[in-house]
Amino acid sequence: MTEYKIALLGFGGVNRALAQLIADKNERWAYELGFTLKIVGVSDLYLGSIINKNGLNAKELAAVPATQGAFRTLPTGSAEPANETVIRFSDADLVAEATFTNPVDGEPATTFCRWALEKGISVVTTNKGPVALHAESLKKLAERTGAHFEFEGSVMSGTPVIRLAQELLAGAEITEFKGILNGTSNFVLSSMETGLDFADAVAKAQELGYAEADPTADVEGHDVRLKVVILANEFLGAKLTPSDVSCKGISQITADDIAEATKSKARWKLIGSAKKLQDGSISASVSPQLLPQDDALAGVSGATNAITFSTNILGPVTVSGAGAGRYETAFALLSDIVSIHKKKIKTGK
Amino acid sequence: MTEYKIALLGFGGVNRALAQLIADKNERWAYELGFTLKIVGVSDLYLGSIINKNGLNAKELAAVPATQGAFRTLPTGSAEPANETVIRFSDADLVAEATFTNPVDGEPATTFCRWALEKGISVVTTNKGPVALHAESLKKLAERTGAHFEFEGSVMSGTPVIRLAQELLAGAEITEFKGILNGTSNFVLSSMETGLDFADAVAKAQELGYAEADPTADVEGHDVRLKVVILANEFLGAKLTPSDVSCKGISQITADDIAEATKSKARWKLIGSAKKLQDGSISASVSPQLLPQDDALAGVSGATNAITFSTNILGPVTVSGAGAGRYETAFALLSDIVSIHKKKIKTGK
Repeated sequence: MTEYKIALLGFGGVNRALAQLIADKNERWAYELGFTLKIVGVSDLYLGSIINKNGLNAKELAAVPATQGAFRTLPTGSAEPANETVIRFSDADLVAEATFTNPVDGEPATTFCRWALEKGISVVTTNKGPVALHAESLKKLAERTGAHFEFEGSVMSGTPVIRLAQELLAGAEITEFKGILNGTSNFVLSSMETGLDFADAVAKAQELGYAEADPTADVEGHDVRLKVVILANEFLGAKLTPSDVSCKGISQITADDIAEATKSKARWKLIGSAKKLQDGSISASVSPQLLPQDDALAGVSGATNAITFSTNILGPVTVSGAGAGRYETAFALLSDIVSIHKKKIKTGK
Repeated sequence: MTEYKIALLGFGGVNRALAQLIADKNERWAYELGFTLKIVGVSDLYLGSIINKNGLNAKELAAVPATQGAFRTLPTGSAEPANETVIRFSDADLVAEATFTNPVDGEPATTFCRWALEKGISVVTTNKGPVALHAESLKKLAERTGAHFEFEGSVMSGTPVIRLAQELLAGAEITEFKGILNGTSNFVLSSMETGLDFADAVAKAQELGYAEADPTADVEGHDVRLKVVILANEFLGAKLTPSDVSCKGISQITADDIAEATKSKARWKLIGSAKKLQDGSISASVSPQLLPQDDALAGVSGATNAITFSTNILGPVTVSGAGAGRYETAFALLSDIVSIHKKKIKTGK
């Protein structure tokens, strides 16, 4: 039985959910997936850090209170974060990177990824920053050291859109994609269809935990823009940076706009899309679009996300599912590890 | 560069489209997928057969007229089918099986699959019969001889639902699925929403080539039942035969039923589904169901197919796309070959 030693960077909802899954499912995974996971280190800006090369108790970790310096209360724990030490000295085979997204330079997450990959430690991440801004160099680095860099959770949480396009649509010739890639803004638009205006819909989303105190990144399309960059670079051979993607959010959509759309049996959706043009260049944008009722994305309501890939051979393929959620995103990390496990068996590395 | 020698059984729309793709795309595939395909034999009940171990001209094959015994007009061709000879003596590495579906015993397709697998020749098929009725024994046979048995095209043509569930949802714990798995019946139901009654909607589907002269298998749910058997056995650990699946079609749905549903913002859909029950047993059925507007399957119109997998960890994941079509189904065969290619690299076999 293969056992991977894993270090967790960031211990908010996602890696905490992963720890809980490890506590609950390791035995099942041994049988079903062919491996188990052993947590050997955790570092979190707020909770502190902890290392044990012989393995930490996943259940105990998952139950640590969300109070400042809480890791101090565990044996071998400290109130101080120690990302570098956890990456370099915990003997991990894998690093699960789930710190906050910095949309400007991807730091410090990108540096964490580099430290791990340089040592030949594979990285799985749910963090859009390193992927949107530095995927190419991180993938090259991984290749050089025999490590793997996987990032299914950077788009649509655990809903397997990246691997679907990469592996299952190989040969279908993807020419274009368009998606509802942000749950908050889609929830706001769905709420406005019940008669709320934009401000009230945002307030409702905040109340229900779908929107942050500052909802700008979600409703102005900045979050979607990073995802468009990730997908366009990965599947259309683009080399986009966020500033290459025109970006308009939903804050100008009025209750009247929504009512009018409903009357004409159409729906406003915040769409992130990219397309390969005849001359080989890529056109990419984020903008509110009025979708006719029979568009595969028109029926996607609430916090659900969805994406349609257009292909030459197979026509359009649409996938919808969770776009966020702690366990849903932790599953993305698990699915990345499943993928690495398969590749390791394959190459014997 | 890996070159696979492939034999085609059945040369209706699907394998003819595959031949056309080989003619058009081989060069691209060498670069993109890491292999090329060389057709070494074809057998068809109506057109006859042809073998050339050094490779047949794919473009010429794709252009053969659809007249009885047409292969006779090609060098080395014959007006007689010769399935066994093509399987056993064409030196093929792969057999693409796309003959007609026999829902009672899966023959003669199952025997064709056996002949190939016994010789260690991998089989890719779009044929529901052998998969629904004999998947377990064919998979065991393949394992014993080091061959592969792949059947993505048996459900939803090239839309990659089988591999999505098998590979990308590994670890997500699928508990249930429900799908719109037959394009003809869904087209009929969609047409009835424009005011046609059942008989007129069927006639329209026949006119447009969506329904066969005898539409029974499609509108009475028999086609969906085979697909439910395939999916339940593959993903829920069931051991179902078609008679285990209760089956009711759409022929009793009236124009009034449809109008009433529309009034209450719901839609009738022919749903194939299966569910793992608390006691571990499997409940599976095919029946018309009234879906509320916000069901992920409610918006799936016309000949499009879709399936929702319910999972413990990730919630529901829905995929929609082509459910039929020559090139769409030929892509399923290609995607099976991509998968086999990856496994061959992995095991070195």
